[in-house]
Amino acid sequence: LRYFIDLSYNGTHYHGWQVQPNAVTVQATLNKALSVLLKSPTDSMGAGRTDTGVHAVQMVAHFDTEVSFDREQMPYKLNAFLPKDIAVNTIKNVHEAAHARFDAISRSYIYKITTSKNVFEHDKCHCFTRPLDVNRMNEASRILRGYKDFECFSRLHSDVKTFLCQISHAQWIQTENHLEFKITADRFLRNMVRAIVGTMLDVGIYKTSLDEFKNIIESKDRSNAGASAPAKGLYLTEILYPNSIYLDD
Amino acid sequence: LRYFIDLSYNGTHYHGWQVQPNAVTVQATLNKALSVLLKSPTDSMGAGRTDTGVHAVQMVAHFDTEVSFDREQMPYKLNAFLPKDIAVNTIKNVHEAAHARFDAISRSYIYKITTSKNVFEHDKCHCFTRPLDVNRMNEASRILRGYKDFECFSRLHSDVKTFLCQISHAQWIQTENHLEFKITADRFLRNMVRAIVGTMLDVGIYKTSLDEFKNIIESKDRSNAGASAPAKGLYLTEILYPNSIYLDD
Repeated sequence: LRYFIDLSYNGTHYHGWQVQPNAVTVQATLNKALSVLLKSPTDSMGAGRTDTGVHAVQMVAHFDTEVSFDREQMPYKLNAFLPKDIAVNTIKNVHEAAHARFDAISRSYIYKITTSKNVFEHDKCHCFTRPLDVNRMNEASRILRGYKDFECFSRLHSDVKTFLCQISHAQWIQTENHLEFKITADRFLRNMVRAIVGTMLDVGIYKTSLDEFKNIIESKDRSNAGASAPAKGLYLTEILYPNSIYLDD
Repeated sequence: LRYFIDLSYNGTHYHGWQVQPNAVTVQATLNKALSVLLKSPTDSMGAGRTDTGVHAVQMVAHFDTEVSFDREQMPYKLNAFLPKDIAVNTIKNVHEAAHARFDAISRSYIYKITTSKNVFEHDKCHCFTRPLDVNRMNEASRILRGYKDFECFSRLHSDVKTFLCQISHAQWIQTENHLEFKITADRFLRNMVRAIVGTMLDVGIYKTSLDEFKNIIESKDRSNAGASAPAKGLYLTEILYPNSIYLDD
């Protein structure tokens, strides 16, 4: 039987989501917890991967098991077993063919910036104290939404087949002490959000003009874009699936 | 000349506010930063002390110096010098006789509880997942506000002359993922807020009745009250002074 597990993690102390040799990752930590509690080796498949230091308010993964368990109680048991920086929110029954990665309709990220020294969030936001023109950065967001090919914001030597992404939402929101960039798309290229944010910060400090921002995207050349913003400010926040993949309780 | 310095700190890695031998404290760290930047040994006097692990959204201290400095620029310089978990917000000119501790009119604290596993705030909130009757805890808040002698919530062997405190505000507020206790008084006894919160949690889980809560206060005996809630959930949030202590700019 196949299940979707919905979890949150603070990525500070992990080498990203994906299992890799000789590094502590969120997926490896989750797999171990599932295997211990189900008393059977269990692997999970994530909706995507997050890089070292990136956080998730919501990550979704699927796993298969023939072991029966109490689906209401299992999150509590997993949370007691998992370290304090990984939390399981829900476990849902899905169709056998449902796939956490391939069936996702959209993914959303938030990038958080503190505009002054913040003693409570120094490891969870990018601290950027130079004055930023947020209206101008939202002009850049509008330009961004007009494009589909984001090779310019893709990690070099990436082996993806296409650089096309359908961005449905991209906006900067200013609060009292924070500046947040919210972006939703059908898919994201590796390092894409951090490269977009880094380039938009250059727009916000008038290092890059809006015309140059357009030219960067059209150049399809990563070396024209700005530096990647630090991982600690990035949060995977939501992954949407069609309702049809869920089985009734 | 005397100055009031307004600062914030994440108390996780400090042995509280007050200077003490062989331990890293916030006050000692601040004194060192002031002394280095003013190029003259400088001591600060805090509005109160916070215990090991307790945070401050606002702490106020005064210091004296004859060294002239740019009052607008100094917070930026101090913030660059201070570690990332201490931030200076403002520095203000005050009358020579103004005293951070004795002139404070009121102090406010917030105690933060997460009601489910929270991967982003595990070191900054007390995680309490048992169901709590918040209305009942606010009944206890109402009872609390009717008393003035809080010896029952005072650390044993405390050498204070009086246990009288005038509480002007005490209330639990429930948000989506948090429960916050806000309390304001003219003064607080050592460990008082954490003892109140611990005792109120007992009320919230029906371990202690409202009559028993009343009896605990009237007994003036710390051993009747509940356990102290953990330091990591406690924030000193505001210290008020009469406007007359500030000098015009």
